[in-house]
Amino acid sequence: MLTKDKKILIVGLGLIGGSYAEGFTRKGYEVGAITRSRKSVDFALEKGIIASGTTEVTRDYVSRFDIIIFALYPHIFIEWLEKYQDYINPGALLTDVTGVKVSVVYKVQEMLRGDLEFIGAHPMAGREVYGVENADCRIFNGANYIVTPTGANTPEAIETCRQIGEVLGFARISQLSPERHDEMIGFLSQLTHCIAVALMNCKESHHLVDFTGDSFRDLTRIARINEEMWSELFLLNRDELLSQMDLFAGEFDTLRKAIREGDTDTLKQMMRTSTLRRSYFDK
Amino acid sequence: MLTKDKKILIVGLGLIGGSYAEGFTRKGYEVGAITRSRKSVDFALEKGIIASGTTEVTRDYVSRFDIIIFALYPHIFIEWLEKYQDYINPGALLTDVTGVKVSVVYKVQEMLRGDLEFIGAHPMAGREVYGVENADCRIFNGANYIVTPTGANTPEAIETCRQIGEVLGFARISQLSPERHDEMIGFLSQLTHCIAVALMNCKESHHLVDFTGDSFRDLTRIARINEEMWSELFLLNRDELLSQMDLFAGEFDTLRKAIREGDTDTLKQMMRTSTLRRSYFDK
Repeated sequence: MLTKDKKILIVGLGLIGGSYAEGFTRKGYEVGAITRSRKSVDFALEKGIIASGTTEVTRDYVSRFDIIIFALYPHIFIEWLEKYQDYINPGALLTDVTGVKVSVVYKVQEMLRGDLEFIGAHPMAGREVYGVENADCRIFNGANYIVTPTGANTPEAIETCRQIGEVLGFARISQLSPERHDEMIGFLSQLTHCIAVALMNCKESHHLVDFTGDSFRDLTRIARINEEMWSELFLLNRDELLSQMDLFAGEFDTLRKAIREGDTDTLKQMMRTSTLRRSYFDK
Repeated sequence: MLTKDKKILIVGLGLIGGSYAEGFTRKGYEVGAITRSRKSVDFALEKGIIASGTTEVTRDYVSRFDIIIFALYPHIFIEWLEKYQDYINPGALLTDVTGVKVSVVYKVQEMLRGDLEFIGAHPMAGREVYGVENADCRIFNGANYIVTPTGANTPEAIETCRQIGEVLGFARISQLSPERHDEMIGFLSQLTHCIAVALMNCKESHHLVDFTGDSFRDLTRIARINEEMWSELFLLNRDELLSQMDLFAGEFDTLRKAIREGDTDTLKQMMRTSTLRRSYFDK
């Protein structure tokens, strides 16, 4: 249970880690933080979104916490655990915010000490800006929070992990296996980012700005992308993403063929399908 | 010159024709309309967005007007002129709202009587709803209006056509050759619609609604599409659209290859390019 006496440690004070810290602090939890940059710690302390913070990982500090939330790049998350999991208090619950699950969750669960439990979670929220300086726990309002348990997880951990989403104010909290999560995210998020990136790479488009309507702007908004994080996430979900990309490329080819051959029936059929399916998504 | 004594005829009272009618009427012009449905005429008369209207094309009615704006599907526009151009007052100026230009403008200019002038225009505005019942001249605020003159046009006609855009309240009025217009629209508008349609055709996506963030919603908003109009516009701009689709498919393939091969350098380079270029489009 995520009772108010639980002490929460955020590892990695970026946009998401900082927003978690702010959200928990506002709800009355004691929040600590470990992050690489002294500036981020100072900023978060000054803003009052953490009660304590450090750039140095020590047994004394880490062992104070009951819940540890990792908001790091996946490979840094794994490295951190290799180095420091000895410091963690027995019985502590570990969770994360990583955008891919299969390649992270099983590895972490396998390497973890037997008296610790890790359960994956993915807050589907973000902004096109970075760093704790832009942290804002309101980004979770209206957003989705997905818990991705495996056979290794206890009902108690699943419940606590869901409660994290509730405390932070997510609109919808759901549960998916790591596999189903990665398939869904491969299609809804990674594929759409690939499309936007490919589209912006088509041409030097400065001269088109004056002619651009909302369609192009909406479609390419996500082409502003953190290349370090997203290239890592893409490659960690490589097989799933490739199969989603193949699926899209196939539909795009069918449409292209219909246009080339003047096949109005296929064209109209695809447009009717897209119109119907898109209508499900109107809020 | 678009002086207030000029009588304006709208042929085709749909969303755009109706919004033109409303815009001109509000600015004090006398606006008439010819459209197929009696219901649309009655609605527009009752709302006071036209001064007169009819479903029958007669010499007596058509010859009253100085400026005729065609807001019809392209093939209906051409048919209309074949049948009825004899009725038009000598010296009248004709323009349109068609979303493709090369395949329309030259054909119309070639078939037209010598004492009439046609100049193409494209109001880049629209909504995902149809019909005069949804007409609203505010859709032009903030939007682009493009005049597409050819060597056959007079400076006076170009100026009057620009004034139409000014009176209707467009934010930016510009001028492009039909060829440049179709290239630009092939990339910015038609290609993006193709992408959205292909993406929605990938899978029955009802079960994904709960996990969908803004990225996917934004990217697929334009997948709700009028299949009659858009299939016609795609095919009228076939060669240009196909070359834009090829360009995109090539970039998408490059990205796919980089992911398949774990080529982080190419991945990051494409993301840096997309991030830089997308920044031009921030309002």
